Amino acid sequence: MSARMPIPFVSQSDPAAVASWLQALRAAMPEEEIIAFSELDEDQRAQCRVAIVANPDPAQLKLLPQLQWVHSVWAGVERLVADLGQSDLQITRLVDPRLAATMAEAVLAWTLYLHRDMPYYARQQQARQWQPLDYVLPEQRRVGILGLGALGEAAAAALRQARFPVMGWSRSARNLPDVRTYSGMDGLAQMLAQTDILVCLLPLTAQTRALLDAARLAMLPPQAQLINFARGPIIEEEALRQALDAGKLRHAVLDVFATEPLPPGAWPWSHPAVTVLPHCSAPTDSGTASAIVAANIRHYRKTGEIAANVDLKRGY
Amino acid sequence: MSARMPIPFVSQSDPAAVASWLQALRAAMPEEEIIAFSELDEDQRAQCRVAIVANPDPAQLKLLPQLQWVHSVWAGVERLVADLGQSDLQITRLVDPRLAATMAEAVLAWTLYLHRDMPYYARQQQARQWQPLDYVLPEQRRVGILGLGALGEAAAAALRQARFPVMGWSRSARNLPDVRTYSGMDGLAQMLAQTDILVCLLPLTAQTRALLDAARLAMLPPQAQLINFARGPIIEEEALRQALDAGKLRHAVLDVFATEPLPPGAWPWSHPAVTVLPHCSAPTDSGTASAIVAANIRHYRKTGEIAANVDLKRGY
Ligand SMILES: NC(=O)c1ccc[n+]([C@@H]2O[C@H](COP(=O)([O-])OP(=O)(O)OC[C@H]3O[C@@H](n4cnc5c(N)ncnc54)[C@H](OP(=O)(O)O)[C@@H]3O)[C@@H](O)[C@H]2O)c1
Ligand SMILES: NC(=O)c1ccc[n+]([C@@H]2O[C@H](COP(=O)([O-])OP(=O)(O)OC[C@H]3O[C@@H](n4cnc5c(N)ncnc54)[C@H](OP(=O)(O)O)[C@@H]3O)[C@@H](O)[C@H]2O)c1
Repeated sequence: MSARMPIPFVSQSDPAAVASWLQALRAAMPEEEIIAFSELDEDQRAQCRVAIVANPDPAQLKLLPQLQWVHSVWAGVERLVADLGQSDLQITRLVDPRLAATMAEAVLAWTLYLHRDMPYYARQQQARQWQPLDYVLPEQRRVGILGLGALGEAAAAALRQARFPVMGWSRSARNLPDVRTYSGMDGLAQMLAQTDILVCLLPLTAQTRALLDAARLAMLPPQAQLINFARGPIIEEEALRQALDAGKLRHAVLDVFATEPLPPGAWPWSHPAVTVLPHCSAPTDSGTASAIVAANIRHYRKTGEIAANVDLKRGY
Repeated sequence: MSARMPIPFVSQSDPAAVASWLQALRAAMPEEEIIAFSELDEDQRAQCRVAIVANPDPAQLKLLPQLQWVHSVWAGVERLVADLGQSDLQITRLVDPRLAATMAEAVLAWTLYLHRDMPYYARQQQARQWQPLDYVLPEQRRVGILGLGALGEAAAAALRQARFPVMGWSRSARNLPDVRTYSGMDGLAQMLAQTDILVCLLPLTAQTRALLDAARLAMLPPQAQLINFARGPIIEEEALRQALDAGKLRHAVLDVFATEPLPPGAWPWSHPAVTVLPHCSAPTDSGTASAIVAANIRHYRKTGEIAANVDLKRGY
């Protein structure tokens, strides 16, 4: 047995995903003993101070009596926060420039998808109709981003490069080059009223759950479009459906849902004004993610410092 | 009557389009007398030295005995070249930075559409299937551009910004920042063999007609994808269909066709591996185009110089 405590990987993902994470994590820190939770014996459990997790079963985490620090390989940690909110564990979530670049690419790709009316042209093709729309300059298509964190900031920069006017909303007031920023509920109303394409990149918290309800969706200009790459419950699904049905909103691109995979009977699958994506906008890269986890763990081994970046009270 | 010769606008476009061009051209050069061809009297016809055209009837141009210079408001001039090839008229085509920016945006938008597998996810949605594909980094998606003119060069820059490795092919050898360039038929074969997404931005000439035939399409790697934003006849439609049917090519985005509008019975409409667009990738902006025509005509009035940029022998 290693002189050092082993580090468990705790996850409810399928065995293939777990195996691939174990491989990537071990390659990134060969000096550590990374063990699937199920392989730990009693003694080892008693030693663990750090766990690496991907959607862990909280009951398993409770079986680690010395646990101080939970390092997630995911960027979104609303479940961890819900499960561990009453504990005094330290929590680190993945902040990875590679992930931010992939998300910025997705935001640019699906913003251009809406900007260049691809859903409309797909319907035209099905009807064998040749009917070009008037071209709208990117300078005339105002994009509003909800959330200006690691992902929102990278998305804003990509959209600015493509010449869209960009606005952004966050909890604390932010200052970003060439982005008109808003905060607070008044700021939100001001931004929504000017937003042609709304991009959601907020964490799911008590404050952001159902933030986009009927009243807020109604603040958007007629024919506004929406992209949700954050978490499903931030949008009230029924309010969204009604706004789409009423023709107030033109189109929605949804990558995230309250229940995933989206159940076969769910209405978004067949709604003509909805593009359903299977949570594919910005997958974690296990290579770069493992390198970041490894660096944080090395720093901890050297200094005893834990690179916690999740505030359990704030909720993200 | 003006002391100056009038300038006819010669076009087979529909009356609404002609009226809107007349308005834009007159606004851009109030000092000139811009007249629809049909409104010219005998005397005026005898005076015209310059004509502004948008897909003109060549028979009408022949009714202007003093005509020296034909200024098109379109970027593609293959019909003018075919119709006027035996004349000694000077020809100017539209070269407009606004058009190049719009085309670069379209190339980026539909390259991202293919890169992020949007056609696949649309089929998944129809089948109510939740099946994310592995993410491919832009650095691993090689884009080859056929034609490095005003449009190809702008497209290459936009694709580089999005981190795709970019190659380009032209008649004469070109040097572009961060773009691997090729010329000649050997160069074409070399580029095609490494191209995951092929973007066609060539003019239609005797040399480029049917350039992408069965043999050249077969040089692309398996599962390559294709975007044609130039002219339909550059690709052999039947060869393309067979390559798609055989699953050698993954998807084609076609904005241009041998016959436009694409006839309702044409196979691309219903092919699952084809996205049909109604020639909407980069529409001319009548405002900026008229300003460019006006500047060329003012220069001519002042100096007698004709800003010809089409070489009838070269064909573009
Ligand atoms: N679909 C996917 O594939 C995918 C992939 C990765 C991540 N995600 C989601 O994306 C989310 C954002 O990630 P991130 O790394 O950018 O998070 P982050 O760095 O923590 O940024 C969150 C942003 O949201 C703002 N915010 C939080 N609560 C708010 C509130 N109540 N009102 C206004 N603004 C609020 C924050 O404001 P402050 O700046 O004031 O803190 C910050 O700007 C994650 O939580 C995850 O759910 C989705
Ligand atoms: N779908 C739309 O909405 C739309 C809108 C506008 C234009 N277009 C099309 O786009 C085309 C390109 O426009 P552009 O302004 O970029 O034209 P351009 O500036 O004349 O550039 C043409 C490019 O193609 C290359 N080329 C020509 N013949 C070739 C050959 N035989 N072999 C290899 N390369 C060859 C040229 O090589 P060199 O550099 O050596 O001259 C040049 O790089 C137009 O002709 C038009 O048909 C389509």
